[in-house]
Amino acid sequence: MIGKFERDGNVFCGEITGNSVASTEGTYDLSELRVLSPTNPSKIICIGLNYFDHARELELEAPERPLLFLKPPSSVIGPKESIVYPASSAHVDYEGELAVIIGQRCRRVQDPEKVILGYTCFNDITARDLQVLDGQWTRSKSYDTFAPLGPYIATDLDSLHLSIVTRVNGRIKQDSNVSNLIFDVNYLIKFISHIMTLEAGDIIATGTPAGVGPLKPGDTVEVTIQHIGTLMNNVISQQDDSSLPCV
Amino acid sequence: MIGKFERDGNVFCGEITGNSVASTEGTYDLSELRVLSPTNPSKIICIGLNYFDHARELELEAPERPLLFLKPPSSVIGPKESIVYPASSAHVDYEGELAVIIGQRCRRVQDPEKVILGYTCFNDITARDLQVLDGQWTRSKSYDTFAPLGPYIATDLDSLHLSIVTRVNGRIKQDSNVSNLIFDVNYLIKFISHIMTLEAGDIIATGTPAGVGPLKPGDTVEVTIQHIGTLMNNVISQQDDSSLPCV
Repeated sequence: MIGKFERDGNVFCGEITGNSVASTEGTYDLSELRVLSPTNPSKIICIGLNYFDHARELELEAPERPLLFLKPPSSVIGPKESIVYPASSAHVDYEGELAVIIGQRCRRVQDPEKVILGYTCFNDITARDLQVLDGQWTRSKSYDTFAPLGPYIATDLDSLHLSIVTRVNGRIKQDSNVSNLIFDVNYLIKFISHIMTLEAGDIIATGTPAGVGPLKPGDTVEVTIQHIGTLMNNVISQQDDSSLPCV
Repeated sequence: MIGKFERDGNVFCGEITGNSVASTEGTYDLSELRVLSPTNPSKIICIGLNYFDHARELELEAPERPLLFLKPPSSVIGPKESIVYPASSAHVDYEGELAVIIGQRCRRVQDPEKVILGYTCFNDITARDLQVLDGQWTRSKSYDTFAPLGPYIATDLDSLHLSIVTRVNGRIKQDSNVSNLIFDVNYLIKFISHIMTLEAGDIIATGTPAGVGPLKPGDTVEVTIQHIGTLMNNVISQQDDSSLPCV
């Protein structure tokens, strides 16, 4: 399990064992460190409608091929950072997902196992009203803070039969298993890398299971994946966002 | 006018005056240098249906708000690089466009002029058959080489009343003026920066005018914008793509 951390303004990667983080900066207790997003991807490739249970819930046929969309790098936040509910939306949903982290530059991949660095939790936050309004999904999924990622990268999973659970304020909202994926991780890497070159650190978000639903300011949302951990974020309204405009 | 260049393996930026390039590496004649994409954006934000003439051609109403989509950084190529016609498509179109280059990190921008570095030519290459098949536009617009950009960044345009012409094998296919934009550059920067933080070097591709149409391997496509220059690329088939898979 590896992660990215900050301490006294220094940013570094480290290996996590229990509550201990070993890094070139020294060995620390997790409690001494701020946990950052474990990668800063050059791109985030997401898959629509990729769980059998989610397709059934929407009374839709399973798609014939993966349906791709992108979220911008600027939408990434780490664990415990705040999701900002935009003033321009009145319906913002969570979507808990398994994310694959690519380990090296690659394209037209034949042997996907070779290019996987590991796995982490992802939350594909979506302004559902704007998604419906636009038809194209980009705007509704591209707001700053709409791509929570983390907490760590599990590099040694020996199976993708993993439970995935999303909780809002502690109550279970999504409860599925990664084995319900329509197109599995290996298929996705082959499919996507025949379209675009993948870079080290890039993310493929594999889609969300049944049970998506709304968030509101004040909520806490957690995505928990077996053998990986829990990605926890709270939701604040735009007016409570204290980060200032850059210009 | 500024650009990015390569000579003997060194990559550098320079200012172009006539055929002369002044840089910290020295002053060169343009003919001694390879011209690269003038920016490597962290994201490319594109606008659908943003010319009155293109909307009329499609018999569609002008949209009420900008329709956004993203192309990945991996799709960028520079002038004179080859557009690779993918084996998975049978209908690949050119779309000549004006691109804005952002000069500094910014969000929720009130004064767009302050954050514009300049303008260049862009070609939003699109696998039209896959666009129709998917509904979502991402896959059809995200192939490697589908975002030709350049040749240089015009930093001192004092008006956006600029002719924009696309030629295929020397024949004019698109012939419009940037003044026909439905949502102008300033409006787009305000709208987009209220959704996502823009980074220095990011690109907003402002949409294509009437006259989009197909390319085939062997074609040469040129996008010419007044006071900026001409972005020229040729088209090759995937089987003639000599760049090897990375893995």
